[in-house]
Amino acid sequence: MGEVERRIVIVGGSAAGLRCACRLVRLRPSWSITVVEEREAFSYAACGLPYVVAGDIEEVDALRRTADGTVRDAAYFAAVKGVTVHPGTRATAIDVGAQLLAVVDRDGTARELPWDELVLATGATPRRLPGQPSHPRVCTFHVAEDAAPLYRQLAQGRIGHVAIIGAGLVGCELAEALRALWGARVTLLEAAAAPLPGVVDDEIGAVVAAVLRRNGVELRCRATVTAIEVADDSVVIRTPAETVSADVAIVAIGVAPAVDLAIAAGVALGPTGAIAVDGHLATSAPGVWAVGDCAEVRHAVTGEAAYLPLGSLANRQGRTLANVLAGREDSFPPVTGAVAVKVFDCNVAAAGITRAAARARGNVARSVWISAHDCAHYWPEAKEIAVHLVYEPVTERVLGVQVVGEGEAAKRADVAAQLIARRATLSELGQLEHSYAPPYAPAVEPLAVAAWVAQNQEDGIIACSPLENLAGEAVLDVRHADERQERPLAGGGTTALPLEELRARGEELGKGPWMAVCERGTRAAETLRWLQAHGRYARYLGGGLRLRAMADGGRT
Amino acid sequence: MGEVERRIVIVGGSAAGLRCACRLVRLRPSWSITVVEEREAFSYAACGLPYVVAGDIEEVDALRRTADGTVRDAAYFAAVKGVTVHPGTRATAIDVGAQLLAVVDRDGTARELPWDELVLATGATPRRLPGQPSHPRVCTFHVAEDAAPLYRQLAQGRIGHVAIIGAGLVGCELAEALRALWGARVTLLEAAAAPLPGVVDDEIGAVVAAVLRRNGVELRCRATVTAIEVADDSVVIRTPAETVSADVAIVAIGVAPAVDLAIAAGVALGPTGAIAVDGHLATSAPGVWAVGDCAEVRHAVTGEAAYLPLGSLANRQGRTLANVLAGREDSFPPVTGAVAVKVFDCNVAAAGITRAAARARGNVARSVWISAHDCAHYWPEAKEIAVHLVYEPVTERVLGVQVVGEGEAAKRADVAAQLIARRATLSELGQLEHSYAPPYAPAVEPLAVAAWVAQNQEDGIIACSPLENLAGEAVLDVRHADERQERPLAGGGTTALPLEELRARGEELGKGPWMAVCERGTRAAETLRWLQAHGRYARYLGGGLRLRAMADGGRT
Repeated sequence: MGEVERRIVIVGGSAAGLRCACRLVRLRPSWSITVVEEREAFSYAACGLPYVVAGDIEEVDALRRTADGTVRDAAYFAAVKGVTVHPGTRATAIDVGAQLLAVVDRDGTARELPWDELVLATGATPRRLPGQPSHPRVCTFHVAEDAAPLYRQLAQGRIGHVAIIGAGLVGCELAEALRALWGARVTLLEAAAAPLPGVVDDEIGAVVAAVLRRNGVELRCRATVTAIEVADDSVVIRTPAETVSADVAIVAIGVAPAVDLAIAAGVALGPTGAIAVDGHLATSAPGVWAVGDCAEVRHAVTGEAAYLPLGSLANRQGRTLANVLAGREDSFPPVTGAVAVKVFDCNVAAAGITRAAARARGNVARSVWISAHDCAHYWPEAKEIAVHLVYEPVTERVLGVQVVGEGEAAKRADVAAQLIARRATLSELGQLEHSYAPPYAPAVEPLAVAAWVAQNQEDGIIACSPLENLAGEAVLDVRHADERQERPLAGGGTTALPLEELRARGEELGKGPWMAVCERGTRAAETLRWLQAHGRYARYLGGGLRLRAMADGGRT
Repeated sequence: MGEVERRIVIVGGSAAGLRCACRLVRLRPSWSITVVEEREAFSYAACGLPYVVAGDIEEVDALRRTADGTVRDAAYFAAVKGVTVHPGTRATAIDVGAQLLAVVDRDGTARELPWDELVLATGATPRRLPGQPSHPRVCTFHVAEDAAPLYRQLAQGRIGHVAIIGAGLVGCELAEALRALWGARVTLLEAAAAPLPGVVDDEIGAVVAAVLRRNGVELRCRATVTAIEVADDSVVIRTPAETVSADVAIVAIGVAPAVDLAIAAGVALGPTGAIAVDGHLATSAPGVWAVGDCAEVRHAVTGEAAYLPLGSLANRQGRTLANVLAGREDSFPPVTGAVAVKVFDCNVAAAGITRAAARARGNVARSVWISAHDCAHYWPEAKEIAVHLVYEPVTERVLGVQVVGEGEAAKRADVAAQLIARRATLSELGQLEHSYAPPYAPAVEPLAVAAWVAQNQEDGIIACSPLENLAGEAVLDVRHADERQERPLAGGGTTALPLEELRARGEELGKGPWMAVCERGTRAAETLRWLQAHGRYARYLGGGLRLRAMADGGRT
């Protein structure tokens, strides 16, 4: 069409790079789009790998099929997408000035690819422990090549006990996979106080811990691995507290951006160690762009650079960059870090930052918790969820939302993400509109309830952590007698006074300080209003005994 | 506390009024809060009534229990909430100047309640057809008193055939209830072209129609009822096309705001016929406020007054008004009309306005449709959904989102509602952040995909309605051979050319105009890029043959 042809070279054949390539060839069919990819197998959904090990997905190739069943190999990209992919081709150096990418083909031939625009989509590599042995018994879990041998050995009965180091997203998913399908003995070692650090705070982490333990995972928290040693027929993992001997150790302590190529070319990294990009995904080097797990993002809550290697972001970045390169108006907006993970029958999801992260940054951050049904409480299939809301007092800005339970969590995090992204306050979260019908939601959405509870807390209705030690507290149990019988409260310092009788008999109560408790926190919080109006001092147990029960066995 | 006592009188003991009362007594414990309620049974979740008829909920009283099992009767509100409720007390007149509410007690005693602030929470009443007979065989379905006799007669086998007039939210829920539990013969008569008019457009309505018919509901669309006549042992419903004889007719054509009291007092109504309120929920009369189904809301899309009698809004309005009356800063924001309904195994949800509503207002509105999996397509439990996105060209503002299918719909409408409420564009919807994990969502959220498809449409990749008549079209089927075999396309004018072969063989194709089709629309849309770049004219079938199959049997 008379258009000047441009040469786009993309390094990396995963979500970000390929999404960018395919969109760009549609927008600019006359341009030459070339993708170089180090591995032979590419374009598969790496997030699905734990489910291959779990047997939920029958073959690794399912992860690289389109919805219509076509395998996304180089022939597919050539025929269907018009994109040239060179698998088995390693990029070795960038000459920014000369606009050349040096590569080595699978047969060892070195050559140079000229580019007008170069896209770095080099992804990430698994982090390793200091002194981590290179041995088949000590593996990471990141690419298809990691999943297949693990599956094979499990299927052959050659693995009976697996030690997983790191209870992050992948560690938890693997723990489930190994227990649920294979019944393997799983020891899960986490350096932090609870699973999923950085994703959820300790109260929600305790719920996840309880789920893991209930399903037979031997979870060790605050367990820093000091050494891994390979013996003849086992691997030995040492922490200050114990020595674990297992058949295999999987190191799942997160990933680091793959930035060697960028560093060598003088492309600037950001404070997180990933490639710094602007809103148009441009790096510091002219004509060089970066997308996906090798690049930083801007965090909507902190306003600062963040490293969030998530497939959902990679896909959007790839499309955004294609638009930018094609000359369209587009930019990649700040993100809230919305994330979800299934841990056995428990759904966990979050958006924004944790209280721990906020405090580490020097922010004041407060918490409230609620226990709720995920749909109308009278609906027969209603399931339990708990919400942990982290906010900043004074500004009343929502910093983060964490949802956990058997009920719907992921989509609630998505709703919260939309609000957090635009720096919503408690008031705005409390006015959250939702589509209400009894099978889908309560008449007031739990996210809104959490905001209301936080507003009440700013009025002085102070919630205590559901993990609070109640020993020594003057507990005021405002539940009905049948509830007290069903879920008794241990300890001697408990006064029973059902909320129904508070107005009639409340004057009998001493000054306090009281710790009001009920099943879900709602009635206990109401009690506080009355107590405070009548000269008593009191706090209440956030999320109530339900949330405490959900976390039971999860505290360490 | 030395505070001046204020007298708040609230007319109506349903969600809005009671939520307001209970919050206000907590914020202002020294104030006198009185609720008058015409009926004896009150404070039940009316949205749950269809599920009582369906047997999902075993007793009507379940709808007026708290999550901890307490029945919310007058004694409960007095003891637990400190709110005085007078059931069986009918408000008859408001004297705005003298600040008096005239009421008649259940024993017939007339008296006057003085107020400093008067809250109208009078709710709505079911609309009636012109000339609708007053007879037990012709009923509406709005209050608990409507559900109990229906259940009883069904349980006694005295109802074999029910005619439901109106396939709105309640009509569809009742149709399911009567078929699923009771196996009753159900004729569902809808004046519009498809079920759920005003909630979804015809393409999505056709999917709902197909679901209803597949489940044995005798759905008649474009069936305007001209007469209802009660015979000795039946009721006869006449439409221009047919005469239906049934045991019972349920008129479910929506509700009208209960505004008699307001009109008589000179309180201004808005353009919708409901009570006009400002952002603080104040009416035109000093000291008189209105919340819930008797009041208007401001629509976020149109910026105009709207009538949306939804329980979710009523609850939030009640709380907002309590804050306002207590002197706090709060206001009720514009709403998007987010709504959800379960119709057998199909989830339906929407936010914003329909294309029909937009066009009726004189807006230009365009549609796109997608078929998608509700989680990663390789996840074994992935379910189908379809999204209909309505937007305004030029501004590219999102006007409405409709989601239908066996997969998650309601929470997607909630996510969309957050974006529509802040007048998001296609670009913003396309940059939607979501929490991705294979069991919960695809790596790109279907809502974002819909926005991308709409952006592509603005590039010239024009989607046709999934209901388009393909006879006479030059159909280009770009599916694989096995897909064509599995879901064959009737008609002679079909050219088969799998997308994989397009680049190699596309030059063989004539100029068109072609109608490209595939399973989900994705490949057909891609085909258009190539065809258009190579001098062919083409459109594609929006949402593909999957959506068309979902709607199969639903077209009328």
